[in-house]
Amino acid sequence: MSNMQTSSTSSEPSAAATSEQVVDPWNVQGGADGKIDYNKLVEQFGCSKISPELVARIEKVTGKPAHPFLRRGIFFAHRDLSEILDCYEKGQPFYLYTGRGPSSEALHLGHLIPFMFTKYLQDAFNVPLVIQLTDDEKTLWKGLDVDEARRLARENAKDIIACGFDVTKTFIFSDFEYVGGAFYRNIVRIQRCVTMNQVRGIFGFSMEDSIGKIAFPAVQAAPSFPDTFPHLFGARKDIRCLIPCAIDQDPYFRMTRDVAPRLGHLKPALIESCFFPSLQGESGKMSASDNSSAIFVNDTPKSIKDKINKHAFSGGGATLEEHRSRGANLSVDIPWKYLNFFMDDDVKLEEIGREYGAGRMLTGEVKAEVIKILTDMVQRHQLARSQVTDAVVDAFMAVRPM
Amino acid sequence: MSNMQTSSTSSEPSAAATSEQVVDPWNVQGGADGKIDYNKLVEQFGCSKISPELVARIEKVTGKPAHPFLRRGIFFAHRDLSEILDCYEKGQPFYLYTGRGPSSEALHLGHLIPFMFTKYLQDAFNVPLVIQLTDDEKTLWKGLDVDEARRLARENAKDIIACGFDVTKTFIFSDFEYVGGAFYRNIVRIQRCVTMNQVRGIFGFSMEDSIGKIAFPAVQAAPSFPDTFPHLFGARKDIRCLIPCAIDQDPYFRMTRDVAPRLGHLKPALIESCFFPSLQGESGKMSASDNSSAIFVNDTPKSIKDKINKHAFSGGGATLEEHRSRGANLSVDIPWKYLNFFMDDDVKLEEIGREYGAGRMLTGEVKAEVIKILTDMVQRHQLARSQVTDAVVDAFMAVRPM
Repeated sequence: MSNMQTSSTSSEPSAAATSEQVVDPWNVQGGADGKIDYNKLVEQFGCSKISPELVARIEKVTGKPAHPFLRRGIFFAHRDLSEILDCYEKGQPFYLYTGRGPSSEALHLGHLIPFMFTKYLQDAFNVPLVIQLTDDEKTLWKGLDVDEARRLARENAKDIIACGFDVTKTFIFSDFEYVGGAFYRNIVRIQRCVTMNQVRGIFGFSMEDSIGKIAFPAVQAAPSFPDTFPHLFGARKDIRCLIPCAIDQDPYFRMTRDVAPRLGHLKPALIESCFFPSLQGESGKMSASDNSSAIFVNDTPKSIKDKINKHAFSGGGATLEEHRSRGANLSVDIPWKYLNFFMDDDVKLEEIGREYGAGRMLTGEVKAEVIKILTDMVQRHQLARSQVTDAVVDAFMAVRPM
Repeated sequence: MSNMQTSSTSSEPSAAATSEQVVDPWNVQGGADGKIDYNKLVEQFGCSKISPELVARIEKVTGKPAHPFLRRGIFFAHRDLSEILDCYEKGQPFYLYTGRGPSSEALHLGHLIPFMFTKYLQDAFNVPLVIQLTDDEKTLWKGLDVDEARRLARENAKDIIACGFDVTKTFIFSDFEYVGGAFYRNIVRIQRCVTMNQVRGIFGFSMEDSIGKIAFPAVQAAPSFPDTFPHLFGARKDIRCLIPCAIDQDPYFRMTRDVAPRLGHLKPALIESCFFPSLQGESGKMSASDNSSAIFVNDTPKSIKDKINKHAFSGGGATLEEHRSRGANLSVDIPWKYLNFFMDDDVKLEEIGREYGAGRMLTGEVKAEVIKILTDMVQRHQLARSQVTDAVVDAFMAVRPM
């Protein structure tokens, strides 16, 4: 998993045609205008857009309001989500699977998106959740030392746990700790079904890539099958899997879905998000090695304030006069995009959009709203994380029945 | 490991030039005359021949007579064997590593060669031994179901244990059971150092091969490093490894030796055998699916007698007159070759060679000797195997300190 690592994107799916767009688990690069064309991506990957009717059905079957990420089109694409809802309505079990590639000490806000959404799904459906930390992937791609990758996996687990997961329904594992037994056997079963030609086509691997990279997609695929977790599901194959992730992970699960029937497994379903933009805007990259590109979960209130005020790309007018007359260009405005991700209050959000877009509200005022929301969110995260001791991590990572 | 699976070979290294000889872990095919040119192989692989001086040195440092397989050039090539002897003389630890790919229920005599020799090495040097059962390899190459491969691994373990290994110094593991933890971490470390281009060059893998095959060489390489076995060697990297195997396995360990220094490991040493010929002779193949191609460890005395009498290729004259005048052609005679492998008595062996080669002894007489020796050997094996209960297998396969 590398989701939310990089981003050069608009948060709203756009119909504009672009060229040379590249989206795979290691690259997110927009077309000629720097934007990701999400419609094109959906068509290219062969997944489906989430319709308002599907969102309404989720609310109906769960009896709970849809998460803002769903209502606002941040999680915008899916595969077989209706089948998961059918299954839930019939009282049949399913489980959630998501993950993270632990390449940095501190997560940024983009990293939290899938976990915040997964927590909503876990609460709404009351189902088991498995979270994979692909420390092996980071060793293979980023050249991290094995023990450093394992350490980062545990550190990142603390930030993930701080999102509020239920220890009685959540199993977190790192590949370097948990690969083996039934997991390894499923990895080999999957690897037997996939050729070098296929991973070249799906992931762009070349003859110069390490055999570890070439083998890895099976490691990310295997948790889609319930018998990878005998302590949770025994040898059962009839339990469906729903994977919340950023859409850059789709290639892994396209491969998994191709292989599943050959192994007697159900195809995993997916619910996929767009990318979280960097502070610099749609063509920027969020990177753990560039502190000014993103808000990190360990930032101080002062740092958040400085970063938003100094670096958050504004769509407001160049002068007060211009702003008052033309209004802000919301489609490139990062403070506005961040509010769309994190402001709970739909009414207030709509009002800000209207006022800011019309030039009656100023960039500084919108930034002040963003700073307030992010500071509050980061401080709550830091408080929650401070309570995640090593013993708590051990509890989430223990191989135990749930 | 696939060693001794196939054979189309002369048991003595020959200097004759051949063309299109192919030897890798899955193919053993002689040149134009059907014979393996072992000198060419040694040159091509870059290993060394075992000199009489080296055999003498082994006898000197162990204080024990060399095994007939050494004296008779059956184990004929090596890498860094002198370094292992240096190390032994200095009282520094080393360990033995060998293995088998469990693709068939019953082993044939060729399969026993590396284990008989490994037992001699274990006894002579009094060192720990790890034995890998590559059930994953057989799933990937032979299309065996995972659980069937695991079952065969345990069945084969019984035949291996029946060779007389010391449970206090021998750890037997199957990949499907033991891959994980430190083993998996070493697999990934190795996979990171090897590209698709390299495995194409070493093993001939192509774009149509499964990513499981492409990944597998690292699984066979990892046990060459002591920290793959934390229950035996902790995190130590300064313990040398000596690998007895058939020379078709050399490509795996050439790759391993290339990678070792990059991971801070010592290069494993090797001691390598020629191939055990099929009953049909040098261009035949021993195969578990062709019962008449080999003597199996579960053959009855009658079956052994029938197979040797009916199928063992004879280098004797076509008629009694021709045989008496020209003698037997020992270089193609399978009964003679089998005696070279399994007759303990050097003096008697030499006498038979002289008399048979001169035409004074008849094929029937030599076959009678072979039948006696093989029947005795197989019956002793069957008796020993009958005492290998599941509890004994569990004891050898238990992850425990030794």
